[in-house]
Amino acid sequence: MRFSKTDDTPLVLDSLWTGAHVATMQNGHYSIIEDAAIAVSGGRIAWLGKASDLPAYETQQEHDLGGGWVTPGLIDCHTHLVFAGNRAGEFEQRLNGVSYQEIAKQGGGIAASVNATRKASEAELIASAKRRLKSLMADGVTTVEIKSGYGLSLDSELKMLRVAGVLSDELPVTIKRTCLAAHAMPPEYDDKDAYIDYLCHTMLPKVAELGMADAVDAFCEGIAFSTAQVQRYFETAQALGLPVKIHAEQLSPLGGARMAASFKALSADHIEFIEEADVKAMAEAGTVAVLLPGAFYTLKETQRPPMDLLRQYGVPMAIATDANPGTSPALSLRLMMNMACTLFGMTPEESLAGATLHAAQALGMSDSHGSLEVGKVADFVCWEVESPGELCYWLGGQLVKQRIQQGIIT
Amino acid sequence: MRFSKTDDTPLVLDSLWTGAHVATMQNGHYSIIEDAAIAVSGGRIAWLGKASDLPAYETQQEHDLGGGWVTPGLIDCHTHLVFAGNRAGEFEQRLNGVSYQEIAKQGGGIAASVNATRKASEAELIASAKRRLKSLMADGVTTVEIKSGYGLSLDSELKMLRVAGVLSDELPVTIKRTCLAAHAMPPEYDDKDAYIDYLCHTMLPKVAELGMADAVDAFCEGIAFSTAQVQRYFETAQALGLPVKIHAEQLSPLGGARMAASFKALSADHIEFIEEADVKAMAEAGTVAVLLPGAFYTLKETQRPPMDLLRQYGVPMAIATDANPGTSPALSLRLMMNMACTLFGMTPEESLAGATLHAAQALGMSDSHGSLEVGKVADFVCWEVESPGELCYWLGGQLVKQRIQQGIIT
Ligand SMILES: [Zn+2]
Ligand SMILES: [Zn+2]
Repeated sequence: MRFSKTDDTPLVLDSLWTGAHVATMQNGHYSIIEDAAIAVSGGRIAWLGKASDLPAYETQQEHDLGGGWVTPGLIDCHTHLVFAGNRAGEFEQRLNGVSYQEIAKQGGGIAASVNATRKASEAELIASAKRRLKSLMADGVTTVEIKSGYGLSLDSELKMLRVAGVLSDELPVTIKRTCLAAHAMPPEYDDKDAYIDYLCHTMLPKVAELGMADAVDAFCEGIAFSTAQVQRYFETAQALGLPVKIHAEQLSPLGGARMAASFKALSADHIEFIEEADVKAMAEAGTVAVLLPGAFYTLKETQRPPMDLLRQYGVPMAIATDANPGTSPALSLRLMMNMACTLFGMTPEESLAGATLHAAQALGMSDSHGSLEVGKVADFVCWEVESPGELCYWLGGQLVKQRIQQGIIT
Repeated sequence: MRFSKTDDTPLVLDSLWTGAHVATMQNGHYSIIEDAAIAVSGGRIAWLGKASDLPAYETQQEHDLGGGWVTPGLIDCHTHLVFAGNRAGEFEQRLNGVSYQEIAKQGGGIAASVNATRKASEAELIASAKRRLKSLMADGVTTVEIKSGYGLSLDSELKMLRVAGVLSDELPVTIKRTCLAAHAMPPEYDDKDAYIDYLCHTMLPKVAELGMADAVDAFCEGIAFSTAQVQRYFETAQALGLPVKIHAEQLSPLGGARMAASFKALSADHIEFIEEADVKAMAEAGTVAVLLPGAFYTLKETQRPPMDLLRQYGVPMAIATDANPGTSPALSLRLMMNMACTLFGMTPEESLAGATLHAAQALGMSDSHGSLEVGKVADFVCWEVESPGELCYWLGGQLVKQRIQQGIIT
């Protein structure tokens, strides 16, 4: 945990942070340091330990956090944050007794989001996503994954990915971009295989060529694409050197997670209906289980992910908002951590690991993010709490005291 | 809705607010005014209508809200916001498999809150409650009810009520205080009737004499006080001129709500297990049903309040956080509105009425608060949303653009 200092040269720092306890989340546990000091240089952690053990140093800035607990900045590893036309109207209609079928007949559901997102300008998409992103950030998030998938044509998918890129230029937050072109069927196609052909021959090569995505994702489900179709799409992604992720087993067991694991998928997400063979394959492939309790809650699902199996096989579990206009209009990752505890029976420690280290792993960035360790990026949050468990305990509330992005207060 | 102006004298105002639509919540419906103007004088609404209909006026201040929707300030009509020692540790223990019984044996549960609250200084109670209150306010709350009930002795109950009073002096929020001395058994008593005697002979008369409470509340349940005991306590409250409220039928049907209605109780709260006779009695007495979805969710209850019966008999339904350290650590009333929709099947319109007009009624203040009408207090919030339904739709998020308390931006 400490730099090994072999001589008396002082540490040369940009900033030093003291006055709080730290849950470093190393190895996915709280790994607590009480009365800690965090030393930052070049946006990374240069030294971390008990303040009383701090070696000689010179620093530009010294910050007393004034109490509370520090954790790694939260990482929201599964969002659909860029879209036009929220669906509060449908939410209200459904609660007034209008059926899903009737809403679909009116052009509602995902088709409404695709239609609105295609029509929206980049400026409109940036403005609305920025509001949502600021809500996530105000609740302690420092890294966000954003998926495309409401475009479903080359131009509009690239537009979504460009918007996600602009967001990371304009706000102090790290963005990872995922191409989810296999999210749903675009209105101009009626043959699923033909659309998958288009994705393999046109969309993915272009996205890869332009370097617009860090990963490729698909929705594998009866109402979306079959395991065989997603497999074909993943073969193309793999050939292009892009890592894959999957929306799988949300509503039924199709073996999608298992298939994705055969591609060493970064993550399989939702997975309420996975079976032991899937869990085993995920464990062997190092595929993270991304649990999305906001969608489970909003859809009033009853089948929980198989928590005991996931623990038994040692599959890392991440938690994300799934922020999207239809099935999880969630703008607080901390609330998802509470729901992971209350609805799925996770412990607060598992839940915090799920929004930090394991979320980083689900984005392929756990070497640099997700825990506080020497050499990792200095993204951290100081919370006005008396224990790290409080982050999961409160429903809502403003707990962030300071949010530090790459060593800088934001 | 408009002042009847019989001559050409201009309205003399302190402030005028335009540039937004308004859901006035009159009669418990959205009662929308598009492109509205709200005129404020002396902290109350002097005129309200379409901006294009505004009569001649003179004003000190003009504010353009710049889009969005205005609603009445939210009213949280059931909280236990003043307490020492949060119970995140118990939350974490339970999720790590420690039983309720084991936690109780360790001195946990409500006894832990009583113990910590008795020991805490007023300054400590003020500081911790203020943090929680600020979270509620940041989410659009302008009026909060705060109950005593973690003191259970004259001194410590009065301490809690004094703290609640200080909070309303120090922050721009209206506080209503409720004496909940019949919340649980204090450790120094082992006979429930003897404690009720103490409340009737000593506690309530003193609280009434000092004018420290706006209402009196009791927890009527097998694990707390019987219907007959609460009835005796209510008889004293009534004789002292204090209106009553009740925690009833949360875990079992004891006829508490019906009994409370016979005292014209302001509200019966929780009421998952009420029966048709209770609902009928509440409707006849004008007793509000205060629904507490945060406790339902946290306790993983399965029996919902009888929504259809409540609607059928026209019982006004309010929604509150029940903010407390054990069964509902909730710091967002808007999240409770979402839960009322998602878990109880309320419509967003019912839900918003439940956090405004019907919440005001549950506090006996619907003549002056809870809807935007000429003559009522100018407590309102401008939200960054495109429809009032969005207030219930988003899970978390920062939606407040402006919060106006008695006509003043806070
Ligand atoms: Zn998703
Ligand atoms: Zn209560």
